[in-house]
Amino acid sequence: MRVLTKDIAHLCRDRPGESLVVFGWVHRIRELGGITFVILRDRSGILQLVLAEATDLDRSCLTLESVVKVTGVPALNEKAPGGVELSVHTLECIARAAPDLPYQVNADIGKIGLEAILDHRTLSLRNPKIQAIFKVQATIIEAFSEYLRGQNFTEIKTSKLVGRSTEGGAELFEVAYFDKKVYLAQSPQIYKQIMVASGLERVFEVAPAYRAEKHDTPRHLNEYISLDVELAFIESEKDLIDLEKGILAHIFSEVARKNAPELALWHTQVPHAEAVHQAPIVPYEEALKIANTEATFGGKKQAARIFDINPEAERLLCDWALREKGTDLVFVNEFPRRYRPFYTYPLDTARTMSFDALFRGLEITTGGRRQHDYKALLEVLPKFGLKEEDIAGYQVFQYGCPPHGGFAVGCERLTQKILGLSNVKEASLFPRDRKRIEP
Amino acid sequence: MRVLTKDIAHLCRDRPGESLVVFGWVHRIRELGGITFVILRDRSGILQLVLAEATDLDRSCLTLESVVKVTGVPALNEKAPGGVELSVHTLECIARAAPDLPYQVNADIGKIGLEAILDHRTLSLRNPKIQAIFKVQATIIEAFSEYLRGQNFTEIKTSKLVGRSTEGGAELFEVAYFDKKVYLAQSPQIYKQIMVASGLERVFEVAPAYRAEKHDTPRHLNEYISLDVELAFIESEKDLIDLEKGILAHIFSEVARKNAPELALWHTQVPHAEAVHQAPIVPYEEALKIANTEATFGGKKQAARIFDINPEAERLLCDWALREKGTDLVFVNEFPRRYRPFYTYPLDTARTMSFDALFRGLEITTGGRRQHDYKALLEVLPKFGLKEEDIAGYQVFQYGCPPHGGFAVGCERLTQKILGLSNVKEASLFPRDRKRIEP
Repeated sequence: MRVLTKDIAHLCRDRPGESLVVFGWVHRIRELGGITFVILRDRSGILQLVLAEATDLDRSCLTLESVVKVTGVPALNEKAPGGVELSVHTLECIARAAPDLPYQVNADIGKIGLEAILDHRTLSLRNPKIQAIFKVQATIIEAFSEYLRGQNFTEIKTSKLVGRSTEGGAELFEVAYFDKKVYLAQSPQIYKQIMVASGLERVFEVAPAYRAEKHDTPRHLNEYISLDVELAFIESEKDLIDLEKGILAHIFSEVARKNAPELALWHTQVPHAEAVHQAPIVPYEEALKIANTEATFGGKKQAARIFDINPEAERLLCDWALREKGTDLVFVNEFPRRYRPFYTYPLDTARTMSFDALFRGLEITTGGRRQHDYKALLEVLPKFGLKEEDIAGYQVFQYGCPPHGGFAVGCERLTQKILGLSNVKEASLFPRDRKRIEP
Repeated sequence: MRVLTKDIAHLCRDRPGESLVVFGWVHRIRELGGITFVILRDRSGILQLVLAEATDLDRSCLTLESVVKVTGVPALNEKAPGGVELSVHTLECIARAAPDLPYQVNADIGKIGLEAILDHRTLSLRNPKIQAIFKVQATIIEAFSEYLRGQNFTEIKTSKLVGRSTEGGAELFEVAYFDKKVYLAQSPQIYKQIMVASGLERVFEVAPAYRAEKHDTPRHLNEYISLDVELAFIESEKDLIDLEKGILAHIFSEVARKNAPELALWHTQVPHAEAVHQAPIVPYEEALKIANTEATFGGKKQAARIFDINPEAERLLCDWALREKGTDLVFVNEFPRRYRPFYTYPLDTARTMSFDALFRGLEITTGGRRQHDYKALLEVLPKFGLKEEDIAGYQVFQYGCPPHGGFAVGCERLTQKILGLSNVKEASLFPRDRKRIEP
């Protein structure tokens, strides 16, 4: 019966002297005074194996990354990782790794550039610190879904092939669909709204979204996981901000509970629930003032005046919130009309009931109340260069659509900022950018 | 404070005479002896409203599908749906529906053809019986994920844009990706395997998959939700079948627990856990014999001899299993080499460690053990018209890949067969076929 490495220490205490079976990957090999020390890696963690010189073992499988089956007796050893090691009695080769490993899986990733990590993606994903990123991401997705189900939201899965853009902009990937041209969806926006209007009222979706943006920055992916939410019977974006605070507080507490080893590997912590709930909500115009003031904080010289909430402003606003409010999270609301899609609900002629969430210096969410009145929707279309036929799906709003709104959390960005990754690509298993389409 | 319609009956018993607030869509209107009866629909169900002739209410919003806010006092009434009705005191119009509703939302969908249902998708999704399909589907996705997390699987999200086919076959949608041509992924096959080999060992994914198949049948979608599983350290496809039985038993019990109203609307039931666990495993050659025997069962005349497990054979095998074994589920294993992808693990020269799951007459799963030895993988490539460079991602198998396997459940097909839908398109919110790309 196989035992996971994470369970060895307590088995050693509970049933000392008992022989155990362990499976895993050869992560590190070290020879010392005639003894071979092997660090074995399985899905739960790592374990030190001790192979005495005298033991008659087939050592042909002692190449890095080989998969082995080992039996042995555990012993407590303060100096070993996890405080326990296994004296090996038998060693069986499950899959021998060729010795010409083209990438050093067990290296300190801080010393390897991002390009090398991505060029060797199938191997770099074996590094425990890199794998930790995706264990945290799995918790984010689970906690997001769990929280919303608890609030009576229904999970939906909508098509990623659309006949036209609904977000505006030309940043679409074209798909040859039989004899037609279609596009990869930039977001499930229209579908979320149709489902809210259908009477489901509260929906969420976890799915890929696509942006054909040409720029290559540490904050952009051409394919990303969008955590989407939409709900009926709201009054303003403040209801949405409340919901997002609840979601984020739950995600952070679940990551803290389930991913302590992963957070430790990245030397980081998630915010406490109180810090999430006390995140300030700053109207756009005020946010601009704060960003400009913050740019000169402590006698700094401002590089250039800030005229919109650009990446620099996002960083400055988060610096301000951390210092003044003790929180990693800021909401900016009341964005001007010109910065928001046609379907955004107006607050007045100039401003909208919309918001962004900024977390640790980065925008992780865009959302807002939507225009649910079909006639009002038609009225704004010309300003956005759109015609009625461009928004065909919205015609159903003529037949009973309640006030509603929603938002989307960028899953990789949230992962990035929880762990302090320098580039969002690190938070995508197989990131897609202009040049990278393999593996 | 808003109350959901599903909670009215018990509130009426617990706090009789108390006024309540309800929001919802006007689902049906009936005039009888000077009294207006309205069926109101919200996300939780329906409720009968009673508007006495004398009451001074603004009735302009009494058009089908209008969204209204209502206050009133509930009273038990055996004849009303759910055994309760609400005497309306105030009626407020939230969103008035235009009276020219182009599709009858409250119609019996059994009397409306599939084309009409899909042509009016944004409205047909409001029908409670149609909406029930997607409430069940949400439970399927939740239960699938929950069961696997409980078995220590990690959820992954992999790219849907791939440089080439890994499944063989030319049924790929081409995407214009900047200056390159890429394809929509037919499955996350290679990514699941890379992640298993990485040491994560056990992974699952819920994501769209694409097949550019030109045929239009009741069992095909060009875009579908694939429930994918892959795990290390298995011996044969029988380990996978055991896992799938566990998953399906959990899904069925969760659907039974959470979706009783939806199952009732479709006059159907899910199989019991015992029936899942006693599903027979029939080797391919034996399955062919059974199908041919079953084709003449009860003195029927066989239309044509069956030479492979085609849709007709799937139906016959399920007929046989239901009659002889009392179960809706059959597993067929040991498929011949020629029917399976290059990465399938051999049982002997002719047969593979692969399987299909057939449920209520339809194949819902294909899976198998995979070849984990890179040299053995290279050896079979010529038979499949493939070269080493076609399977670039698999090169990592040279560096320690354990025995492993997996499978995928077609989410829409499982939904279809649980509810007894005649066409798989009914189980897709916004189905994509050769002609349908909107909404």
